[in-house]
Amino acid sequence: MGLSPERTVAELRELHELTGDDNGSQRVAWTETWERAREWLREKVDATGAREEIDEAGNQWFTLPGESEQALLIGGHIDSVPNGGWLDGCLNILAGVEVLRRIAEEGTPPLTVRLVNWADEEGARFGRSLVGSSAAAGSMSDQDELRERRDADGIALPDALAEHGVDLARALGARRRLEGAAAYLELHIEQGPVLESLDLPLGVVLGTFGVERHQVTFRGQAAHAGSTPMDKRRDALAGAAKLELEIREIAKRVGEGAVCTMGGVVTRPGIVTSVVETAECLLDQRHLDAGRLAELLGSAQEASRRFAEEEGIEVEWQKIWSIEPIPFDDRLIELADESIREVAGASHRLPSGPLHDAAEVARAGIPTVMVFVQSLRGLSHTKLEDTKEEHLELSVQALDRLTTKALGLFAEQ
Amino acid sequence: MGLSPERTVAELRELHELTGDDNGSQRVAWTETWERAREWLREKVDATGAREEIDEAGNQWFTLPGESEQALLIGGHIDSVPNGGWLDGCLNILAGVEVLRRIAEEGTPPLTVRLVNWADEEGARFGRSLVGSSAAAGSMSDQDELRERRDADGIALPDALAEHGVDLARALGARRRLEGAAAYLELHIEQGPVLESLDLPLGVVLGTFGVERHQVTFRGQAAHAGSTPMDKRRDALAGAAKLELEIREIAKRVGEGAVCTMGGVVTRPGIVTSVVETAECLLDQRHLDAGRLAELLGSAQEASRRFAEEEGIEVEWQKIWSIEPIPFDDRLIELADESIREVAGASHRLPSGPLHDAAEVARAGIPTVMVFVQSLRGLSHTKLEDTKEEHLELSVQALDRLTTKALGLFAEQ
Repeated sequence: MGLSPERTVAELRELHELTGDDNGSQRVAWTETWERAREWLREKVDATGAREEIDEAGNQWFTLPGESEQALLIGGHIDSVPNGGWLDGCLNILAGVEVLRRIAEEGTPPLTVRLVNWADEEGARFGRSLVGSSAAAGSMSDQDELRERRDADGIALPDALAEHGVDLARALGARRRLEGAAAYLELHIEQGPVLESLDLPLGVVLGTFGVERHQVTFRGQAAHAGSTPMDKRRDALAGAAKLELEIREIAKRVGEGAVCTMGGVVTRPGIVTSVVETAECLLDQRHLDAGRLAELLGSAQEASRRFAEEEGIEVEWQKIWSIEPIPFDDRLIELADESIREVAGASHRLPSGPLHDAAEVARAGIPTVMVFVQSLRGLSHTKLEDTKEEHLELSVQALDRLTTKALGLFAEQ
Repeated sequence: MGLSPERTVAELRELHELTGDDNGSQRVAWTETWERAREWLREKVDATGAREEIDEAGNQWFTLPGESEQALLIGGHIDSVPNGGWLDGCLNILAGVEVLRRIAEEGTPPLTVRLVNWADEEGARFGRSLVGSSAAAGSMSDQDELRERRDADGIALPDALAEHGVDLARALGARRRLEGAAAYLELHIEQGPVLESLDLPLGVVLGTFGVERHQVTFRGQAAHAGSTPMDKRRDALAGAAKLELEIREIAKRVGEGAVCTMGGVVTRPGIVTSVVETAECLLDQRHLDAGRLAELLGSAQEASRRFAEEEGIEVEWQKIWSIEPIPFDDRLIELADESIREVAGASHRLPSGPLHDAAEVARAGIPTVMVFVQSLRGLSHTKLEDTKEEHLELSVQALDRLTTKALGLFAEQ
């Protein structure tokens, strides 16, 4: 019967019917609706003969044994944010099911093939994303902190997980699931505007951005807006304004996909009759290359100090959060590019802004790549999230081809 | 015995002892402490023979009859903000008392001389400033609105005024007090940094600024800080940043004392992971000349539209408040300049940013001028407000000379 991308689209709609409402998808991890989605998935995969296991972190694995114990992994997440879209995460689960079916139909694959439904990618209930994949990757170093987390109703994270058979203290046991993994493939909606603006259905992801996130505080002097001449002012907002405009020039200079965002400014006292004394700016800088990311940060820090001097004000940087860039595997990037060109005529290489489970797997040293399919208007985490049906079908075909090529590559080794 | 500026300083301290505490002056209008200050003032003036009257708006008048019924007015306010300074308002009352004493001592003046202690200049209790002087000037057009105002304890403004013998419905009867007024003189602390920065004790005030106050809202598109390339953004904050920097250039171009302030920016959604969708800016522009003020406003509006176009965003202007410039009298400005040069060697002409009772009197068509005395660090409305004792004494001398010169000028007419 072969691959049926139309079936994937039909199954995405079926899942949405089962677990969504008028406000969108409601498959929040560690809830009944999420369990219902996992049960439904179990039934879907059953016919392929793949064996199901739930690991110590709650990740749901389906294994189709191959000629070698070495495994090719295809991963996604069936959980969603509240009032979420119908594609984010589950597209790859259902595309993966379709690929499993095709492979199972053809007999025993050269490598073992495993589909993984990661637990709690979104972190919607407890505010900590990538829960299942970080446990499997061994990078869940914040267990003490996780133990203290509570949801909006005051329920503790460990209690919620226990209700779904997961003992937080043993979650890192999921690490052994990545032993013997040859490669990891993930298809996802882009959640950004790049592919749509290029009028391309599909792209290959080069890796996830490294991020530097800081609060930059400029401090001047409050002064009466009426009685203080312009040349006697020490206006903190002027420093913030110069930096907001300069980060765009810095991004242009550093180039190659750099993004810099001043996401907010808080002004104090913030009244119409006073020069701004304090301007607290939220700055987010991202790059796929660690050196370039350091250049973005260093240039912005230097510029902010220059602006502070020009304005007779002070500036202070405080780190909020940072993460290193996680590059994907060059060989798999080539194979994904080929696969996309074969099914769609043209491909495009782009970095991922949002983090994904794939980043956790790549950090654990498994050769990894992702394929993005166009998101209409770049929207996600809303019921308005959408992708053209023809693009969804192309994405299933691309994942299927990529799987075949990756099996070929690693079977040779 | 002649003029005794030292006595004015001593009496300022005496008043502060009587009506202040560790947190500053507490002579909030329509309170017992304020009445105590007025009673104390009554006793101080009594010896000069000046006749006291309270008008329909609660203003306290002291009249020293002259050869003509035409009157020269000297005005100030004994009310303060809570935790206020020891000089704001009452300096001119006590300097005026000293001038009255000197004139009374010398016999009958050519014009009638009247000292007025305006009621509720600060508007500290009910949030409406210049209450007494706007009633006398006939510009109190918001009586319906005033009737609804309440203080922090829920007491209505008309009830509070009634406790001090004022019937709000009859307050505009105070208008007749300005009939036959030849000129109005007011001495005040600068409440700004200009004279201190020029190392000058005294300056003559050219008038009060016209003010244009607007909320300027830039509207772009929220977008993910990680997945939205720089050239695909519609960043509302970029419009705000450009305008913040441009208003300074506009002020420079328009020149002659223009001041422009962006006092606050509110960014939405205002989170580190999103491009700013909406930036609401508070803009305050002031000039002494109505044409230049219109130029400040027009240039900023034009610039904001240019920035919106450059950034692919929208901009909207909403007026918060405006007032026309109120220029003071040219002949009196000359006399004040002369008086200041005589007592201090050098003078400086400057506009007033804050409004004053003098602006209300000038709006009513009475020739008006103000003299400013240096404020240390430009501070006021705080117990840290201060002026050097030697400068206070010079200011009493300058007011005295100005009074003599003004009496001469208007007696000739």
